[in-house]
Formats: sequence, structure tokens, C-alpha cells
Amino acid sequence: MNQPNGSIIKLDHGSGGKAFQNLLHSTILKAFDHPILHECNDSAVCTIENCRIAFTTDSYIVDPLFFPGGCIGDLAINGTVNDLSMSGAIPLYLSVGLVIEEGFDIQLLNTILRTMNKASSYADVHVVTGDTKVMPKGALDQLIINTSGIGLVQKNLSISCGNAQPGDKIILSGTIAEHGIAVLMKREQFQIDTNIQSDTAPLNHMVHHLIQEGCIIHSLRDPTRGGLAACLNEIAIASGYGIDIWEHAIPVHPDVQSICDLFGYDPLYIANEGKLIACIPPQDADKALSIIQKEPFGKNAAIIGEIIETNNNMVLMTTAIGGKRIVDMPVGEQLPRIC
Amino acid sequence: MNQPNGSIIKLDHGSGGKAFQNLLHSTILKAFDHPILHECNDSAVCTIENCRIAFTTDSYIVDPLFFPGGCIGDLAINGTVNDLSMSGAIPLYLSVGLVIEEGFDIQLLNTILRTMNKASSYADVHVVTGDTKVMPKGALDQLIINTSGIGLVQKNLSISCGNAQPGDKIILSGTIAEHGIAVLMKREQFQIDTNIQSDTAPLNHMVHHLIQEGCIIHSLRDPTRGGLAACLNEIAIASGYGIDIWEHAIPVHPDVQSICDLFGYDPLYIANEGKLIACIPPQDADKALSIIQKEPFGKNAAIIGEIIETNNNMVLMTTAIGGKRIVDMPVGEQLPRIC
Repeated sequence: MNQPNGSIIKLDHGSGGKAFQNLLHSTILKAFDHPILHECNDSAVCTIENCRIAFTTDSYIVDPLFFPGGCIGDLAINGTVNDLSMSGAIPLYLSVGLVIEEGFDIQLLNTILRTMNKASSYADVHVVTGDTKVMPKGALDQLIINTSGIGLVQKNLSISCGNAQPGDKIILSGTIAEHGIAVLMKREQFQIDTNIQSDTAPLNHMVHHLIQEGCIIHSLRDPTRGGLAACLNEIAIASGYGIDIWEHAIPVHPDVQSICDLFGYDPLYIANEGKLIACIPPQDADKALSIIQKEPFGKNAAIIGEIIETNNNMVLMTTAIGGKRIVDMPVGEQLPRIC
Repeated sequence: MNQPNGSIIKLDHGSGGKAFQNLLHSTILKAFDHPILHECNDSAVCTIENCRIAFTTDSYIVDPLFFPGGCIGDLAINGTVNDLSMSGAIPLYLSVGLVIEEGFDIQLLNTILRTMNKASSYADVHVVTGDTKVMPKGALDQLIINTSGIGLVQKNLSISCGNAQPGDKIILSGTIAEHGIAVLMKREQFQIDTNIQSDTAPLNHMVHHLIQEGCIIHSLRDPTRGGLAACLNEIAIASGYGIDIWEHAIPVHPDVQSICDLFGYDPLYIANEGKLIACIPPQDADKALSIIQKEPFGKNAAIIGEIIETNNNMVLMTTAIGGKRIVDMPVGEQLPRIC
């Protein structure tokens, strides 16, 4: 891996794309060498006295704090529930670390906390520990919420980006890019008549049903920062295989597509907060798809491609008109920036 | 509990004193009702498939990032190791959530990460999961590090602030107020000739040895923000008993006392990052003291008081000249502010 560009942190180091990968490999993974960390999954699976525990952390920063379909509060609950779910864990307990700017409105804080309560009830997880810090006015823009979480992983389960196998079908659980577009529309206050809402949602029940019904799952990942493109590239890199996706099969809400066309965004690179990618062996793919489609957050699920044997671990897209295009890791700042 | 003063977040809401307690009870504990959270210990103890797991989180903000005796990096490792240790857990795994300001020096980040690596090796814990976010320049002052941690709690162990009993001796593991004073001296660049260093240190080995040697421990707490005063008040409130401490018995480094006298600070209210308070039944107190004194971070440990039956759960101090003084929860901003 290359050294990070230049010697200072740039915004694109936080974008989930190439610059972030460089930073991760040249700093963080060099500082900490535990093999579980180096698997780079959405959550770590640790064994404690015969008990397999999934463990994850995420800091949430979003501007504006409230957007169509949600706010930083439910985002912080659902995001961590989803990271745990991506290892096949049943999420159980969460921590909440608040860092608040001096002068922040307490009524607003209460409103955000209530959305967190509601989201944690819905996902059936419990906040059991927390921490609150206050920074002087001007030293922080409003509010950061860190949520960490622990969950229980079944003994025989092994779900990891590195487990994807050639032939696996790639299921996407629904339409993409809605979170990023909803936040952008709210922040920039564009005068566009659209009802696009963030897709923020917990995915643990969906994953649990797949496991309960006996579907073999090789890999799970939720395409948040960096969008579907970053997520597929991470699976390709971790597994060492290539990926072929089919443009016509990828569900995109027509309003999202119009806004992307208008502003020149590619929905593949835009954040989601309630979608997953599952790599499923071909014999189980149709069954898994039908289970996901019956879930409240999976109605628009589709098989969008497959894992392929190649000499390089690239993500290729067969375009709607039959051409081939490389879907690379995002480069540069995330567009639109949503935090 | 009263409503928080006014309707906006003030700096003293982050001080660990009365304002924080009000905010905690009027907002956070109202939003989340799980009984484990409401125990308000330094870490939550959750049972997962017969396995008792301690779980904690803390966000670290300190200005300056480097100070005599340490930096934000080892602080973030030791602090979370200590929070786990305060429930009697053996700390095992940590998460690291970085939130970095755009423009932050990557070499400095690497230096901080190396101190985290060294501190985690020393404490025998492993970083297994993490998250990195970047905020635009000006939206955050430098760097916040959140560390969460999980550890294993022995089946028969029940250590909680609420378990303190009348007659328990209160052991303090060493001299107080060094972290707060070291940070203050560095930040304000006072021209005072002193070698006071932060006491940042992991306390897990000390706690483990107490447990191994069969000492009964009712309560453990580390006096960080809000100092010894906040910590003792929290034990008094949780247990429903009073506390009597003896001023002459509380170890304070003479340089710390001089600086406190000069600036009008009370060492009881100043932060520590490598000290603990243990409530130990009288029959085990001398044994526990002698175990702690043999530890590298416990040489100056002392019995500083005891839990008493009273009609109110107040902390009283018998002063050096034989008077009595109420040691109240800290009120207002922490002085000196160290974050």
C-alpha cells in the first residue's frame, strides 16, 4: 500500500475510498497487529470463554443533524446494529458516547436521544453504558455520537468478506444512494420537488432470518460511506476474486437517478444506511433473495452480479448497453459529502 | 433530580460534577431504561450465554494532545482499560474510533497510534476493531479518540458502587491530582519548575492481583474527571451510605500541593488517570493495601477513610486540624479544565 498522499489528513481520508485505505494500511494497521483487526470486517468476532462475541464501533457525524427519513440519533443506532449484523451476530448491547459542543440545545439533544431509544427498541438492542463529553464552543461543530456494540455469533457461523467464492451470487437488499441524496437535498436546500428519504434502518432481523432459514452466507457488508462501489471493492480485495455486476439489475429509485443525472453523481458511490450486500452460493441464492424480499427493508432486493475468477480482484460492471466498465474504489472526497 | 440549568449545554455539563449528574438523569437515563445502564458503573456487566462480559466506552479530548507523562493516545487506552477493571473484569479487546480534523499531521497521528500500541501491549489488551472519520477544518479541534472495550468478569464477582457497606475501608491507590496539574502546566506554559507528570497508567493488573489473592472488593472506581470528590460522592449516592475521609491520610505530592495552593485549586477535585478507590470490608483492608502497595502504580496507596451509616449520603472530611468539612460534588466547570 502507498503512503497517504502528503503528510496531513485530508477530507478524502474519511471518504471510505482509496485515500482511506492508504491511511488505514500505512498508519492504523501498522500500529495494531491483532489478526482480528487485520480481517477488516465491519465488526470483529472475538471468542471469550467459548462465547463468540461480535464487537464494533462507529462515530457518527452528519450535517445537517436532521434530514428526511431520520437524524444522527437513529443513524447511530442502526449503523452499529448493522455493522454487528454483517458478521452474522445477533446485536445485543450498545454503548453511546456523546461529544457535544458547548451551547448545544438540550431540547434538541432530548429529541435525538428519543430517536435513539426508538431505534434501539425497534432493533431489539439495549444501551447499557455511555459517556458524555462537552467541548468548548467552536472546538466542535455541534455533536458527534459514537456507538459501539456487542452481539452474539453462532458457533458454526463464519461470515467474512474474505469468504466470498467464485460463483457466489451478489444480492443487494434494495435501492441505492437514498441516504446520501436525502442528506444532500436537505443540506443544500435545493428547490427540487422530491420525497427521497434516508434509508436508515436496522438489518439484523433480515440477517437473522437468512441464518434461521439455513441459507449459507459467505460475506455480508453494508454499503455506507463510499457506497456500493467501495463495498464491492472491499469484498474483491479481501477475497482475492473479481466481481461482475450488471447495471440493469441494480435497483435505483427514479428520483435518485434523476438527481444524480442532474448533478453528475454516480449512485454507485453514494452512501446507504439500510442496505446490505450478501455473497451467497448459487444453490441458495434464490431462496435468500426471496427471504430478503419478504422483509420490510428488502422489498426491492435483487441479484446484481456474481463473484468471478480473474487474475486481478477488480469490480467490473456490464453496462445497460452491454459494455464493460471498471467500478473502482472511490477516489477523492465523497461526493456529495454527507458528513 | 433537577432539570439541567437553562436549556443549552454548558461546559460544566462535561465536568463530571453536579451539572453532569443533572444532565445524565434528565436526558440520557430518561431516554434509555435498561437496568444495567441505570447502575451507572464505569463499565456495564452483561451476561451473554453464561459469559459475563464487561463493556465500556469513553471519548478522549485533551488539550494539549501531549503533556508530561503521556498523550491522548495512552490516555485513551489506559482510561478504557481502567473502566473495565473497575467492574473487576479482565480487559481483553478494545475498539478505537478516531475523529480527525482535516489538516491534522499524519506523522503526529502515527506517533499517537504508537503510544496506543505500546499502552495496549503493556496492559495486555488488543485493538480488534475501529473506525476513522475526518471532519472539515474548523469543525473539530484536532482529534477525538473514542475507545470502547470488552472484558471478562469472573462468575462469582459482584463489584459495584452500590455494594459499598458501612465499615468498608476506602483505599486510594496513590497520590492524587497529578494528571490535571500536568496538563494544566503544559497548556498554560506557566514558568514553574516542576516535574509533575500525568499518572496515566493501566490498573488492570492491580485489580487482578487483588482478586487473585482472594480480597473481597465491594466497590471500585477511578477518580478521573471531577477528581476524588466526584468519585466518592458517586459511591455515596449509589450505596446510600455516608463517607468519612481523613485529610491527613490522602497522599498528595508536595509539588502538586504547592501548585494547588498557588492557584487556589483543591486537589480533591482534580483529575487522575491512573488511580483507583477501593471499598474493602475491614477484615481484608490491610491485606488489600499491602497488595496494592507492591504494585508498580500503587506504592503510595493508603487507607483514606471509611463508609459510614448516616441519615444522608454525604462525603465528610476530617481536616488536618480536626474539623469536619463537607466534600460536595464538583459544581461548575472543572478547574483546571483539562479538555
